Amino acid sequence: MLKYQQTATEIEAYIEQHTLQQGDKLPVLDQLIRQFEVSKTTMTKALELLERKGIIFQVRGSGIFVRKTNRKGYIELFSTQGFKQNLVAHDIQSNVLSFELIACPEAIAENLGTAPGDMVYFVKRIRYIDGNIMCLEESYYRQAIVPYLNREIVEQSIFEYLETALGLNIGFSDMYMHVGKLPETIAEHLELEAGDPALTVETIFHLTNGRPFDYSVITYHYEHSQFVVQANGLYL
Amino acid sequence: MLKYQQTATEIEAYIEQHTLQQGDKLPVLDQLIRQFEVSKTTMTKALELLERKGIIFQVRGSGIFVRKTNRKGYIELFSTQGFKQNLVAHDIQSNVLSFELIACPEAIAENLGTAPGDMVYFVKRIRYIDGNIMCLEESYYRQAIVPYLNREIVEQSIFEYLETALGLNIGFSDMYMHVGKLPETIAEHLELEAGDPALTVETIFHLTNGRPFDYSVITYHYEHSQFVVQANGLYL
Repeated sequence: MLKYQQTATEIEAYIEQHTLQQGDKLPVLDQLIRQFEVSKTTMTKALELLERKGIIFQVRGSGIFVRKTNRKGYIELFSTQGFKQNLVAHDIQSNVLSFELIACPEAIAENLGTAPGDMVYFVKRIRYIDGNIMCLEESYYRQAIVPYLNREIVEQSIFEYLETALGLNIGFSDMYMHVGKLPETIAEHLELEAGDPALTVETIFHLTNGRPFDYSVITYHYEHSQFVVQANGLYL
Repeated sequence: MLKYQQTATEIEAYIEQHTLQQGDKLPVLDQLIRQFEVSKTTMTKALELLERKGIIFQVRGSGIFVRKTNRKGYIELFSTQGFKQNLVAHDIQSNVLSFELIACPEAIAENLGTAPGDMVYFVKRIRYIDGNIMCLEESYYRQAIVPYLNREIVEQSIFEYLETALGLNIGFSDMYMHVGKLPETIAEHLELEAGDPALTVETIFHLTNGRPFDYSVITYHYEHSQFVVQANGLYL
């Protein structure tokens, strides 16, 4: 973690500890610099990062303010960090339905930018949030990039393993979302009825070098999942 | 528009004109600087902006590459720019069902951070994408910030009017999404059946100074809307 990222994390902790609310003002720049004992450059980068993450907003000539949703129970949609790291306030459990090393089916290969027949780890899990079924997840990991997975790992946080044990640098992702009616096969897993509403999110995860390594299809339980996105319109 | 934003727009146009695809390499930094006749600082900021927008990715020591989804017909979910500006490739039409100046209901006032009874413009529209019903939109604009609206404006792009005619600086937004079953009243407007799947997106739009000015609830037609998000995991 770089210095400015660490400073950003500390400021986030400060906001939490002081239970600051939407619109609350943070100390002025000079005071923040003294308080967190960093250079002006580091603090400026830390604040930019927090602004992009939707934690603060800065008003020229007026100050630095807290952004905070006042609604509870929403999942942050927007992350390539995987659920576990993204839902720290929740209890996330997984029930692994399938775990196997298979030859990549053609439709999946296209999404992963690889050749059909390349070996991929296929992981099918039910994921629970605070004891409720949150989603069914089917993921395909390219073995060329993820040389080893086992059942113990996929019962926990796969992304944490990829980053810490394998040292992969996870870069960016393309997400495709649509809403539709649950097919019988998936409804069963979610303990819902065929025809019930479903949000399906397909994601292609890339390393920082641009190589796709994971294609995942998640179908959410509509009663146990709702999402929040804190967006910056101008992309700063 | 600032210089680096203009340069970013020009590079986007360059990518379009040359029909570059996902993973295609852009010229190296020095060449881009010469080609677009800008300073290194401007080019660096332009590239950062494009990276945040999910248009390119940069690999240290390797180069600058194009990000581009190869799927057609997806709506970019992630924007505070309003549909019209966000869907330039599509024909967007509106049918205004209601347009009135009303005293703000309590539930809406809470979202807008204002007092119940404050005056708000209420706009209810069906929005069409390429001739199909895309969504039902119900929006509340604070008159204290948006002093004037009329039916002609709400038949077009409201956000364009707010930015260009009123000179408002639209800053950031909080989006809340959930999936559920369509109630009868909304199903009728969408020409769907009660109980059909629906994606509902509530958004609170803020000015750059942090003041909420618009609360909108959009219910999407599940057969005529699907979404793409090009995400940066590390928030750069």
